[in-house]
Amino acid sequence: MFDFTFHNPTKILFGKDAIPRICEEIPAGARVLMTYGGGSIKRNGVYEQVMHALQGLEVIEYGGIEPNPRYETLMPAVHMVREHGLDFLLAVGGGSVLDGTKFIAVAVHFEGDPWDILEKRAPVHTALPIGAVLTLPGTGSEMNGNAVITRWEKRAKLAFYSPLVYPRFAALDPQTTFSLPPRQTSNGIVDAFVHVMEQYLTYPVNAPLQDRMAEAILLTLIEQAPRVLESPNDYDARANIMWCATMALNGIIGVGMPQDWATHAIGHEITALYDIDHARTLAIVLPGVMQVKRHQKRQKLLQYAERVWGITTGDEESRIDAAIERTRQFFESVGIPTRLSAYGVGAESIPALVAQLKEHGMTALGEHGDITPDVARTILQQCI
Amino acid sequence: MFDFTFHNPTKILFGKDAIPRICEEIPAGARVLMTYGGGSIKRNGVYEQVMHALQGLEVIEYGGIEPNPRYETLMPAVHMVREHGLDFLLAVGGGSVLDGTKFIAVAVHFEGDPWDILEKRAPVHTALPIGAVLTLPGTGSEMNGNAVITRWEKRAKLAFYSPLVYPRFAALDPQTTFSLPPRQTSNGIVDAFVHVMEQYLTYPVNAPLQDRMAEAILLTLIEQAPRVLESPNDYDARANIMWCATMALNGIIGVGMPQDWATHAIGHEITALYDIDHARTLAIVLPGVMQVKRHQKRQKLLQYAERVWGITTGDEESRIDAAIERTRQFFESVGIPTRLSAYGVGAESIPALVAQLKEHGMTALGEHGDITPDVARTILQQCI
Repeated sequence: MFDFTFHNPTKILFGKDAIPRICEEIPAGARVLMTYGGGSIKRNGVYEQVMHALQGLEVIEYGGIEPNPRYETLMPAVHMVREHGLDFLLAVGGGSVLDGTKFIAVAVHFEGDPWDILEKRAPVHTALPIGAVLTLPGTGSEMNGNAVITRWEKRAKLAFYSPLVYPRFAALDPQTTFSLPPRQTSNGIVDAFVHVMEQYLTYPVNAPLQDRMAEAILLTLIEQAPRVLESPNDYDARANIMWCATMALNGIIGVGMPQDWATHAIGHEITALYDIDHARTLAIVLPGVMQVKRHQKRQKLLQYAERVWGITTGDEESRIDAAIERTRQFFESVGIPTRLSAYGVGAESIPALVAQLKEHGMTALGEHGDITPDVARTILQQCI
Repeated sequence: MFDFTFHNPTKILFGKDAIPRICEEIPAGARVLMTYGGGSIKRNGVYEQVMHALQGLEVIEYGGIEPNPRYETLMPAVHMVREHGLDFLLAVGGGSVLDGTKFIAVAVHFEGDPWDILEKRAPVHTALPIGAVLTLPGTGSEMNGNAVITRWEKRAKLAFYSPLVYPRFAALDPQTTFSLPPRQTSNGIVDAFVHVMEQYLTYPVNAPLQDRMAEAILLTLIEQAPRVLESPNDYDARANIMWCATMALNGIIGVGMPQDWATHAIGHEITALYDIDHARTLAIVLPGVMQVKRHQKRQKLLQYAERVWGITTGDEESRIDAAIERTRQFFESVGIPTRLSAYGVGAESIPALVAQLKEHGMTALGEHGDITPDVARTILQQCI
């Protein structure tokens, strides 16, 4: 096991009464910017619950934060916070609203161009406090310090991390997810699944607890996914998916482990160029990474095959083939195509995607740093 | 799954360089009380490492905190903190030093008799900040808000919880555990194992991720225990045991779950009357609880039998019998006798132990609150 630091101060309020309880978590007298997305919260009752909980506080709303939240959309919110002297951000929505709100939090008091936080990894010294009401499980953003922001005019989708943007609290009420379209439910499941894989499918470092906890999430996602898609109002299934997604990326399963994240890096470029949903890009890229890196990932692939899919017969190569195929089938089973061609993108995309990776400095990806642009090209060839 | 709140703000520094890093975590100008136990830290190099890390700070030492830390031992430290105006507590040792330090933290500014915090569950409104250097994994106290304190003159061993006493940080260097006597290593393994069981072995609430994460810890403890006892200097095995013990009681596996804790409550009385090591009392009591509550715990016992011990043949009763027996064998395999009689205590102890439970209000134990003193008597009869 590698040395590690773990610190996750987010307070989770989970369950049927989670949203009303946010009023206990926001400082008295706070001047709140409430951020949200496309407006589904005004149709499913979440907006009313949140506004009721915020009674007595000054609240300004800022809706319209899109999937893959854009710098262009967020900067007006930054100016609004500055102009009105707001001092608390409440994100109500999924990972995109949360990530966008994290960017607002660090941009407000940033000296210089806030885009530098993403493009130049400029250090962040201060951030407004954030709370969250999660309505779309998947990204794990409700319990971590990560955010991914897109600048559409530059076709750039870039990430930042700061310990300052862990939400102070996150309210998770599984009932808010009953009305999700199947596509968003499935995206969330695949996103969480791949978050686990990026932290798990590398090489053994004698960290058996982390391995088993990662496998626990994978097994639970596989078990609960058909239930939640068949019965969208199954509270327990929704709760289990929601908690899996949070646990998949709150740091717990990855402590002391080598990590990969090549699938995410390559997927981000696909989203940036072709605007394909984040989770769908992961479902496209992961099988390719598994295939091309099967030799370095051999031991963990065999462990994954056995413990997650129960594959114990056949020689090692065929067990690995079967594990990759089962992974692909799982994504397809929740309605997510795993080939770029299914999204109308062909091999002609590969040079542009590889060029994007180079432009964003993504030239040494994977747990060994050996996924060069050439290797990424080979991976992408597997994804068509 | 039940509704829950989860909030664990402790920062974990884990690995070979953990101790020197504590200097970054203690506020500049802090006036520190450094607490420790019987002095092993002066023989294994931990004391020097800690004092080196504390260079430049005012530090007063307070050693001699014993296993099952006593009110009588701790109150002089409380007076010392008040007298010298100290403002930070650094616990260096195992769970007893940590628990004792948590009591000091809340007692210092408590108005009235601090014993009321334990006996009358008097509310705690303030606590000094605590840091920890862990040298004995087991209790999980390094990453939670629990403490158990003994008042020897009253033969009382009582617990308190406060969100104010989560350590701000905990440094976990597995190397500090190389020199532990086998008895302490084994005690820690059994303590962690039973912490998991108290949160796991109740009844199903459709929380499959929590179940699998609990099983992950149990399987890892079972796998790593013989390694660490055979090869005390095996870094990875020590690291795995250490992280298992922390994860067993930092709240993660128990969220949204019914919990038992009867084994602990009964065990505390055994320690209070007969001064038997805490973990040993758990190894004595747990098999009795499993036996007497086998009907209410039936479904989880069968799941435990299959997933943890691989017991899949025989009828349900015999699978449960086998699971109880394998649990007992595991404790015995690490050198911990599982019968009261092995510690020189016979059936004559039962009336006094039951009377103690009554005196401490422990009259409705277990996940159903149906372990009355009469049921506790039946459990204890199984433990002789």
